[in-house]
Amino acid sequence: MRGKKRPQKRKNKRAETGNKTVSSIVKQGDWIILYHSDKHRYVVKVEEGKMFHTTYGSINLSSLIGLKYGDEVETNVGEKLTISRANFVDRLETIHKHTQVIYPKDAAYILIATGIGPGSRVVEAGTGTGYMTAILAWYVKPSGRVYTYEIRKDFYEKALKNLENLGVLQHVEAKNKDIRNGIDEEEVDAVILDMPDPWTVTEHAKNALTHGGTIAVFIPTMPQLEKTVVSLRKTGFKQIEPTEIQLRKYKPIPEELRPETLGVVHTGYVVLARKL
Amino acid sequence: MRGKKRPQKRKNKRAETGNKTVSSIVKQGDWIILYHSDKHRYVVKVEEGKMFHTTYGSINLSSLIGLKYGDEVETNVGEKLTISRANFVDRLETIHKHTQVIYPKDAAYILIATGIGPGSRVVEAGTGTGYMTAILAWYVKPSGRVYTYEIRKDFYEKALKNLENLGVLQHVEAKNKDIRNGIDEEEVDAVILDMPDPWTVTEHAKNALTHGGTIAVFIPTMPQLEKTVVSLRKTGFKQIEPTEIQLRKYKPIPEELRPETLGVVHTGYVVLARKL
Amino acid sequence: MRGKKRPQKRKNKRAETGNKTVSSIVKQGDWIILYHSDKHRYVVKVEEGKMFHTTYGSINLSSLIGLKYGDEVETNVGEKLTISRANFVDRLETIHKHTQVIYPKDAAYILIATGIGPGSRVVEAGTGTGYMTAILAWYVKPSGRVYTYEIRKDFYEKALKNLENLGVLQHVEAKNKDIRNGIDEEEVDAVILDMPDPWTVTEHAKNALTHGGTIAVFIPTMPQLEKTVVSLRKTGFKQIEPTEIQLRKYKPIPEELRPETLGVVHTGYVVLARKL
Amino acid sequence: MRGKKRPQKRKNKRAETGNKTVSSIVKQGDWIILYHSDKHRYVVKVEEGKMFHTTYGSINLSSLIGLKYGDEVETNVGEKLTISRANFVDRLETIHKHTQVIYPKDAAYILIATGIGPGSRVVEAGTGTGYMTAILAWYVKPSGRVYTYEIRKDFYEKALKNLENLGVLQHVEAKNKDIRNGIDEEEVDAVILDMPDPWTVTEHAKNALTHGGTIAVFIPTMPQLEKTVVSLRKTGFKQIEPTEIQLRKYKPIPEELRPETLGVVHTGYVVLARKL
Repeated sequence: MRGKKRPQKRKNKRAETGNKTVSSIVKQGDWIILYHSDKHRYVVKVEEGKMFHTTYGSINLSSLIGLKYGDEVETNVGEKLTISRANFVDRLETIHKHTQVIYPKDAAYILIATGIGPGSRVVEAGTGTGYMTAILAWYVKPSGRVYTYEIRKDFYEKALKNLENLGVLQHVEAKNKDIRNGIDEEEVDAVILDMPDPWTVTEHAKNALTHGGTIAVFIPTMPQLEKTVVSLRKTGFKQIEPTEIQLRKYKPIPEELRPETLGVVHTGYVVLARKL
Repeated sequence: MRGKKRPQKRKNKRAETGNKTVSSIVKQGDWIILYHSDKHRYVVKVEEGKMFHTTYGSINLSSLIGLKYGDEVETNVGEKLTISRANFVDRLETIHKHTQVIYPKDAAYILIATGIGPGSRVVEAGTGTGYMTAILAWYVKPSGRVYTYEIRKDFYEKALKNLENLGVLQHVEAKNKDIRNGIDEEEVDAVILDMPDPWTVTEHAKNALTHGGTIAVFIPTMPQLEKTVVSLRKTGFKQIEPTEIQLRKYKPIPEELRPETLGVVHTGYVVLARKL
Repeated sequence: MRGKKRPQKRKNKRAETGNKTVSSIVKQGDWIILYHSDKHRYVVKVEEGKMFHTTYGSINLSSLIGLKYGDEVETNVGEKLTISRANFVDRLETIHKHTQVIYPKDAAYILIATGIGPGSRVVEAGTGTGYMTAILAWYVKPSGRVYTYEIRKDFYEKALKNLENLGVLQHVEAKNKDIRNGIDEEEVDAVILDMPDPWTVTEHAKNALTHGGTIAVFIPTMPQLEKTVVSLRKTGFKQIEPTEIQLRKYKPIPEELRPETLGVVHTGYVVLARKL
Repeated sequence: MRGKKRPQKRKNKRAETGNKTVSSIVKQGDWIILYHSDKHRYVVKVEEGKMFHTTYGSINLSSLIGLKYGDEVETNVGEKLTISRANFVDRLETIHKHTQVIYPKDAAYILIATGIGPGSRVVEAGTGTGYMTAILAWYVKPSGRVYTYEIRKDFYEKALKNLENLGVLQHVEAKNKDIRNGIDEEEVDAVILDMPDPWTVTEHAKNALTHGGTIAVFIPTMPQLEKTVVSLRKTGFKQIEPTEIQLRKYKPIPEELRPETLGVVHTGYVVLARKL
């Protein structure tokens, strides 16, 4: 179909790609992956003058600046790591690893099912480590805004740092406040609750939402699920949809393809409802 | 703590909200929900001069312009419907209803797990009705771009209309082309494949991706899953993660809270892999 | 190893089988399957003088007596059906089809997990159609006994007929009694409860069970699950294990192998506990 | 409701139970549970002269003979354990703990779905540790028979010991033979295959089964599932039903009721088919 030129074109393409990567240079402030193997990969922000330590030896991050993506770099003990671009999810891992937060599968479903996107105004509580906040902030860019409430001072401060580090703080208004006392915002597109007693906030949420707005609640236990549904009904929310999202990982070996034997069986329930 | 002042504060808040909704007026071109009950709600774009027909009678859409969100409107047979803002997911329903497309749970996971966001450059095939294309376009706004390939002329043309209608066409480059013959783009952040034989495209995808880029494949059957994993390994992709996302809906009635008896048991498998 | 002889051996084997099937003759009172295709098969008890009607015409059951299993029989409109032995599960289908009862997957797990087997003495409530009763009776044969309680007279009488029809009535003591008023038996091996308010019976069950005996409760909703667990704990049961058993059917077509798209997502929860 | 008599009746009942337990005496050869707590319980056969060692000290098993079920016994370090009857599943645990065998949920479903029960004649391969063999033997009692094939001598011998120890050996004919070379039996009710390449046996199974008989195959991976279904179709089996049974355990604490976070996500697929 594309005829004789194709083999040639592909050679050219590689050449072009070669040229193109002239602009694909590692710069100060880039988030990168240092890849050794599927089990050992490291997500790190390139900061001049910093040393980065891995199981395979350490690397002076300054030495990466100016290299091309796809290049290999050697640690002080001679192990080779490949440099790749880190995407937003990779960066989030740096938060995810250290605390129990909402899982990507749940965060993803909440994001899509609430229709949150560029320009959305979203209220969230509690901030926790800022994991969900960061996802929301990332997707309401550039004109939207996330208003996040956290009652604990230490979490609030840690989250501020995380959000700054991830480069999304300018889209967030973080508050060290108890959302159970009320929501300051009005006419917001969505309210996301990941807290132990979301039923204390459903009425505030109803008032804060625009007509057509969505509330999404994440709770791990059945008694919480029950109380949440009761409360949403009483408050007059419509289209109440309690759901559970399950994710099974499969062994990526063709001749042994099957779900992994052990895994995460439960994270929590997601309840969606609309102000209609 | 919240003391005597609270009732007063809440009255004030309602008043403010009342004022604010002066700017919450239905305008020509708005997407809205006309809500009758959880089982009967209608998503429609407000277009002057058009009639909209429901099970509960019809409405002249012109008559909605200038009303406030939250207002009720009467059909020609006297039934009342409430006007609410439609979000992006509501709009997508207008596509989703008429064909078998990827489900929100799978689309959501692909979006988040690939790290696609504002500014991303994404290749997709096949376009189909444009459902996944629209989601991608919505989230790469404003500076990103979706390059979508569709081999069938009729699908391609229908998708163009859908994307325009959903207001995301300016972020999409749609091509009536067979992706198995090659990918024109380079250094893209992600390649999303929802087609019967994705293994014919894995090498093209590898070439098109930036270092660190992600491929995501959606396929319904086990033999397809096997062939996909085999092909991804052979092409040299890393961190191959075959997964299955399941979603169970629960009955939203507190005293009968339980998963629905019948439901969708399977949509497909999602395989993620990285160029590292 | 199996060499040239094999074809011969197989011929012999068939001949033997042919001889052997002299004793494999359809007799009055046998339960059989009349098989047309995977979607159309009929389970019926061979009763002299009875006509049996299918979508493919009717058959005088008398005419089957004396035929061999594996033979074909023709209906009055010339359609051919194959005669096979019905097993116990096939027979149960004749009950299962007409009412909502516990599913095989749940019944099976309860049977095995409680260790019920030949010689066991089991209390059950409510009898319902006798579906679970029949399974229990079948497996406690020949020396065991099932004591089953049913508050509704009509169910009780229908169950008696079903159990007689299935040929297990002699292993059952059926009672038209409210089990909430007490259990007559002592030192039983297991108590199986499939009723709306099992928590009203947990104390009776504790008294009726032998040391080491097991209670198994089947309930469809979350609030019932909660109340059951609360009650079992209060009554002093040990090793309380709430579980949910899910069964997914796969499409049996090799090139399209995948879970069925639609299916049963939930039947109920099974809670096991021990008197220890 | 039942008036004044009830308290009295309950006192009487306890008294009777007291009398009745005269016959509920621990005897030589009994299988018992020594219960300390939900996490520490021990299943053991009472054998005169043997010492039994637990985390909480040791017990001379002779000293248990003559005690009543429900009594407490003290270890040499003064810890108290309660004596309860072990049921058949408890006994199986002694096998289950030491090797990877088919899970109860899968064994249970195979048992019920094949209609195996008192009097059934069943062929099985491979024997393995004898776990599934023991279950089958237990349920075909007293007149049925299990024919089990095992190619490995060491497994075969270990299984013989296990089956004898569990007291079901008299219902089993164990063979140290490769079932791929043929099945000796004819007109059997069911063939159960738990082996790496069951497709090598489907034709033998077809010949060995009675008309109406059932084959059940347990295999862990997708490629095995595919090959099994292909083979069953080619051999002419009907009503081929590939299934997957999943079991989720819930936290048995009322106020935290929820599925356990981590657990077994996959054991294997069960394929059923009929000779019809």
